[in-house]
Amino acid sequence: MSLQFDITAQDPNTGARAGTLTINGKGVQTPVFMPVGTVGAVRAMTPWELERAGASIVLANTYHLSIRPGEQLIEKAGGLHKFMGWKQLLLTDSGGFQIFSLPKVKVSDEGVSFQYEVDGQKVFLSPERSIQIQNQLGADIIMAFDECVPYPSPYQKAEEAVRRTTQWAKRCARAHTQENQTLFGIIQGSTYGDLRQRSVSELLNIGFQGYAIGGVSVGEGLEIMKEVLEMTVPQLPVTPPRYLMGVGLPEDILASVERGIDMFDCVIPTRYARSAGLFTNRGRIRLTHKKYKRDFYPIEPQCGCYTCQHFSRAYLRHLFLNNEMLASVLASIHNTFFYQNFMRQIQEALKKEKFASFQKDFLSGYEIAPKGPSLKRQWQEKSDSDDFLT
Amino acid sequence: MSLQFDITAQDPNTGARAGTLTINGKGVQTPVFMPVGTVGAVRAMTPWELERAGASIVLANTYHLSIRPGEQLIEKAGGLHKFMGWKQLLLTDSGGFQIFSLPKVKVSDEGVSFQYEVDGQKVFLSPERSIQIQNQLGADIIMAFDECVPYPSPYQKAEEAVRRTTQWAKRCARAHTQENQTLFGIIQGSTYGDLRQRSVSELLNIGFQGYAIGGVSVGEGLEIMKEVLEMTVPQLPVTPPRYLMGVGLPEDILASVERGIDMFDCVIPTRYARSAGLFTNRGRIRLTHKKYKRDFYPIEPQCGCYTCQHFSRAYLRHLFLNNEMLASVLASIHNTFFYQNFMRQIQEALKKEKFASFQKDFLSGYEIAPKGPSLKRQWQEKSDSDDFLT
Repeated sequence: MSLQFDITAQDPNTGARAGTLTINGKGVQTPVFMPVGTVGAVRAMTPWELERAGASIVLANTYHLSIRPGEQLIEKAGGLHKFMGWKQLLLTDSGGFQIFSLPKVKVSDEGVSFQYEVDGQKVFLSPERSIQIQNQLGADIIMAFDECVPYPSPYQKAEEAVRRTTQWAKRCARAHTQENQTLFGIIQGSTYGDLRQRSVSELLNIGFQGYAIGGVSVGEGLEIMKEVLEMTVPQLPVTPPRYLMGVGLPEDILASVERGIDMFDCVIPTRYARSAGLFTNRGRIRLTHKKYKRDFYPIEPQCGCYTCQHFSRAYLRHLFLNNEMLASVLASIHNTFFYQNFMRQIQEALKKEKFASFQKDFLSGYEIAPKGPSLKRQWQEKSDSDDFLT
Repeated sequence: MSLQFDITAQDPNTGARAGTLTINGKGVQTPVFMPVGTVGAVRAMTPWELERAGASIVLANTYHLSIRPGEQLIEKAGGLHKFMGWKQLLLTDSGGFQIFSLPKVKVSDEGVSFQYEVDGQKVFLSPERSIQIQNQLGADIIMAFDECVPYPSPYQKAEEAVRRTTQWAKRCARAHTQENQTLFGIIQGSTYGDLRQRSVSELLNIGFQGYAIGGVSVGEGLEIMKEVLEMTVPQLPVTPPRYLMGVGLPEDILASVERGIDMFDCVIPTRYARSAGLFTNRGRIRLTHKKYKRDFYPIEPQCGCYTCQHFSRAYLRHLFLNNEMLASVLASIHNTFFYQNFMRQIQEALKKEKFASFQKDFLSGYEIAPKGPSLKRQWQEKSDSDDFLT
């Protein structure tokens, strides 16, 4: 198998660690953040801009790609790397997370049937089918097909999902035959410690190259997510990489790195960017606010990104107020750079055995924005209470 | 004054010529095409992408910028170059063309009053005010405030506009005092030869550093535009640069270069790009058409642009069908490169005294798309009869 993970630094006081993940001759430093390229494109960003912003691995969504343009087309194009012009590492999810958020989903041990949200066509997805699609897409890392339950879920429902996730994980491992792809298992169990432990031990019995923690970032909030990590990560062996799915904000990432997570993905940096939500070391700002009208400083004065090197807050605000696409482009460049730079700082701090002080310093300067109960709900609020057009 | 224009090649058989236009130490090769950056941004393109696509001068719209964010803000930001992060040449129009296309416009010899289309605020624009705004914006080339009549216009109306345009041109020349900005006059006269001649001679009496031909690209079509050029350009002295405003398609540009035009601007390459209209040497293609579904070739196999070097038609079509912004970004990069490369080919042909054969070769391979009576109307048709979602 082709994955190699070398832990290069281990924080003496917490579970935090830095490492190098190498697959198919392509390496990334961990802890790593993966920008999300849902349909085979990180929205508004060219692969060139992505690389320039420091990204070295991108996540794409199996659910979306299988429906449009279809895995056959992407396979015929020479695989997803070639199709989307991305030469570095790629990870595809299994499609499970998206499907379980759809209405009218029918789950059986065999698999999941649902209606495609755009044209209502009936689709059936099973572990075998998910792996087959991911094989055809050809990402470096592929994910087992799991059952993701919402938060909160009653114990029985969560237990049923763990049972099914294990069964499906076995079928995924059996179905997976592509040597140049690395399969990760996904741990479920909602917020129940014994279920998380059971899920871990059953997946370890099957044996995967990496382990993801699923069923988080579904509205439980940071405090409960920390608890889930604390009941789950210590059960995992040291060596394989650990991936926390769908997380998150900088404060979430810090807390998760502290608890031993190596890999992250989230739509937040690019999605917020398109709504003028920009990350800075002092917290997130809403660039359309009138206080930036005559603000000729960059988003982040010390930032090395293309956007901050060339444009002022006043200019970006002007572009947002004119609904000019370039606003989304430039904001996505900044937020992606911010996240990648943030991960580099974490890696550096770990190598210098200064993770605790970095975490403390970062959080003391960073104002955490108030957060609703669900990220999902937040994303739907396109405009907020700020005075958008003044 | 700071403009210098050196004609470096003159076609022996037509009016076509190549040259170098230098203003404020910044030079461009002519015939030149200026991408349009209406609100101080060429839509969907970073200045870096614009330069990489070969652009060396950009047009911005005084009308839009004066209303939002306002010329005071841009002046305070250090001028439009700095505000929009564009170091090369900039040209601002006078605002006239936009205003005369608005409803409820009241024209008097003093100036024009109109309601701003977004919030209904009443605005008054005069020659002095237009120059003042353009001074504050600080572009390298600024335009006189003219009266632009629609096509077709009765003789009397066109005559009145010529009279007023001359009067206003005098007031613009008087109002203009910025030494580092170069003022161009605009010739009006609709489709009437004697009016065009009168407009030319009256503007020559005032004396400008360059002469623009206005009142074209208002729905008259290529044949009538050629006639307008033939009745106008021969009246102009050889030395100053000649700028045909708002033109156009590749075939329009060739016909206009042939008739002695040096400068062009048009929203077509970027606007068409956003609707999946892509320029190739064989004609324009609509990338959302189903025939490109499994087409793994670049838009233009021999093209050197970033988009063609990295992405297939099938991928771009997929992005367009998903309404993914990156589609517009990549298509705008290609079309801008196509136009700049087209102008470079024209320049080269002129230097080698092969303009006629280049024109013939280009047009013999290039299928001209059927065109409605008005470009404006075409632009409003966002989707066409092509099968967009198949």
